[in-house]
Amino acid sequence: MKENKATNIVWHEGHVGRDERQRLLGQRGVLVWLTGLPSSGKSTIAFTVEHALMARGRLAYVLDGDNIRHGLNSNLGFSAADRTENIRRIGEVGKLFADAGLITLSSFVSPYRQDRDAVRELMGAGEFVEVFIDTPLELCEQRDPKGMYAKARAGQIADFTGISAPYEAPARPELAVRTAECTVEESAKHIITYLEQQGRLAMG
Amino acid sequence: MKENKATNIVWHEGHVGRDERQRLLGQRGVLVWLTGLPSSGKSTIAFTVEHALMARGRLAYVLDGDNIRHGLNSNLGFSAADRTENIRRIGEVGKLFADAGLITLSSFVSPYRQDRDAVRELMGAGEFVEVFIDTPLELCEQRDPKGMYAKARAGQIADFTGISAPYEAPARPELAVRTAECTVEESAKHIITYLEQQGRLAMG
Repeated sequence: MKENKATNIVWHEGHVGRDERQRLLGQRGVLVWLTGLPSSGKSTIAFTVEHALMARGRLAYVLDGDNIRHGLNSNLGFSAADRTENIRRIGEVGKLFADAGLITLSSFVSPYRQDRDAVRELMGAGEFVEVFIDTPLELCEQRDPKGMYAKARAGQIADFTGISAPYEAPARPELAVRTAECTVEESAKHIITYLEQQGRLAMG
Repeated sequence: MKENKATNIVWHEGHVGRDERQRLLGQRGVLVWLTGLPSSGKSTIAFTVEHALMARGRLAYVLDGDNIRHGLNSNLGFSAADRTENIRRIGEVGKLFADAGLITLSSFVSPYRQDRDAVRELMGAGEFVEVFIDTPLELCEQRDPKGMYAKARAGQIADFTGISAPYEAPARPELAVRTAECTVEESAKHIITYLEQQGRLAMG
């Protein structure tokens, strides 16, 4: 390329630092990882947090089955290896989003402790917030908005988490939300308060 | 979950709309896809655009080999199928980033027209900006900062784009940047001006 001609603009060629993006946004990037049984309330809570943060002028984004399973992970099935790869890719995308400065929320059953811990390993200190959406199986099964538990009980769906496949609850999550004892709004507030206390919603 | 008790906060449970995020950021999400020979200048130009946008208070993020090949795509090699899957995943991540409202720049050789067109298909109208970094092979080979062309010529690297593997130039890119005829800064300005004219750097 030709030599740079003098201009009144300062041009930089290297990466923009994460701090610069965070200062622009007035927040610190983070991956809030919601895990829990099917129909435990993960997505409802994630979207509620997203709305509340946006109302405060903070940039948030939810990764969930809708935008991941039909896109990035559309070539994965439900074998053990594919489930692990599913969570691995979501973790890597979450890492990129956090690096870009976003308050990133992921909403996936993610039943295996090992897979979730592998995502934690990817992230820097304080950047991974594991939130256990702790809803009793009975309650999830009562809700069952898509009739999945009924089908699993009837043997029409194999390897359904909570019925015919294991769910490994987090041993030491950053947060546990008992949805039998609080509203969606209270659950969302719990998460937002944690992020606030950890300094993720401000910068400088 | 318990019934929502009256509060003074309006809680929403559905997805935050893309428009809301775009209004917050004052910009429209887009995927700027830089393609060109190895050492053609893609990453240098992408980072220069990123810096200039950030200086204007616009949120930009670069996807490149450094943050993708060692992370999301670390389990892919260089077979034909893996190259296609590599570009597919980058496209899907770019789609998520654009949906989140970011001015997203991707910097990959991406030598096959079919793979790039598949990414274009993923995106909405105006959201995919293909930028052909049009640098003559001789010039790329002269630069060769990592000595890759020399190794490819010596037969030490197989299937090296431009030497022993094809590069399919875009037929109708949104932009073509001839780096033999302009500086890095001029190339970056060219891209920024295009984004400005297309209304991606403002909202409302």
